[in-house]
Amino acid sequence: MPHLYVEYTDNLAGLPGQQLLTELNAFVCGHPSILDEADVKARLLPVSQFEIGSAPANRGFVHVQLRLLAGRTDTAKKELSEGIAAVLRRLTPQPAGMMVQLSVEIADMDKPSYYKGRL
Amino acid sequence: MPHLYVEYTDNLAGLPGQQLLTELNAFVCGHPSILDEADVKARLLPVSQFEIGSAPANRGFVHVQLRLLAGRTDTAKKELSEGIAAVLRRLTPQPAGMMVQLSVEIADMDKPSYYKGRL
Amino acid sequence: MPHLYVEYTDNLAGLPGQQLLTELNAFVCGHPSILDEADVKARLLPVSQFEIGSAPANRGFVHVQLRLLAGRTDTAKKELSEGIAAVLRRLTPQPAGMMVQLSVEIADMDKPSYYKGRL
Repeated sequence: MPHLYVEYTDNLAGLPGQQLLTELNAFVCGHPSILDEADVKARLLPVSQFEIGSAPANRGFVHVQLRLLAGRTDTAKKELSEGIAAVLRRLTPQPAGMMVQLSVEIADMDKPSYYKGRL
Repeated sequence: MPHLYVEYTDNLAGLPGQQLLTELNAFVCGHPSILDEADVKARLLPVSQFEIGSAPANRGFVHVQLRLLAGRTDTAKKELSEGIAAVLRRLTPQPAGMMVQLSVEIADMDKPSYYKGRL
Repeated sequence: MPHLYVEYTDNLAGLPGQQLLTELNAFVCGHPSILDEADVKARLLPVSQFEIGSAPANRGFVHVQLRLLAGRTDTAKKELSEGIAAVLRRLTPQPAGMMVQLSVEIADMDKPSYYKGRL
């Protein structure tokens, strides 16, 4: 069930997109709160039109949102967030002169109404 | 007010995107919890870079997120989720040898701060 | 930390996308609930495949989702929503014969598990 959304501004030249997904999934799938590796669905979403803050500056970001069924403990969420951030710090390039922000959000999904199935 | 996000991995060749939106909207607009059909805003979002789980395998998914103003009952949410899933099961193709996952999330939106207007 | 997602249907010819982001950021960055202007990360997301309601009609929309760390008051959220809506009303074009919907959602993000960092 976990849904992973990886957004990055496309001024981050050289960002290894597919590797980023692979390493994020490896981490998330290995966490005890995830029961079936096949459930982890990650998307890479380049952002080509963006604006960061209001000052003229050279800026970029990578932002990950992980959506999980409600019920994980605060500790589990924190571990997931920190682990994802560690992958981002390792793989995000820093173009010269650019301030690059990294962020991770863990979001709950409503459990009683969630549907999952397979063809 | 309802916002419908329909994501699909673009390895699902032959997915009838526009028909999917039309049939999803027909179902959602017909549900008693929706007051004005014109409010239902659906987007089709192909995902071209993705990774599903950590095992090497041929996988794809269709995921729908329906965002509604808070206040619907659990029963209404469950009905919406099941009805959307039924449309997905009917219209999603299954390429040979691919494991295709279907999922539906119903999400609440904060009501007091929600704005809607028309030009 | 605020994340701003600006979606618009691409039948809204002439929508001044970059200006929209600039003016939305100027407003949001100026609100007392935002501490550091550099934190406001806005994306412009054109939607090319969509369906609005179930009646055959010429329709379009602009929808903004603002994601904030939980803890803002209802009053602050309402002010943010109204201010964003004012920018949308001012800058969204109305093609002849089209019904254009504007909407703004303010969403809470889980605070204890949120990560932010800079390279």
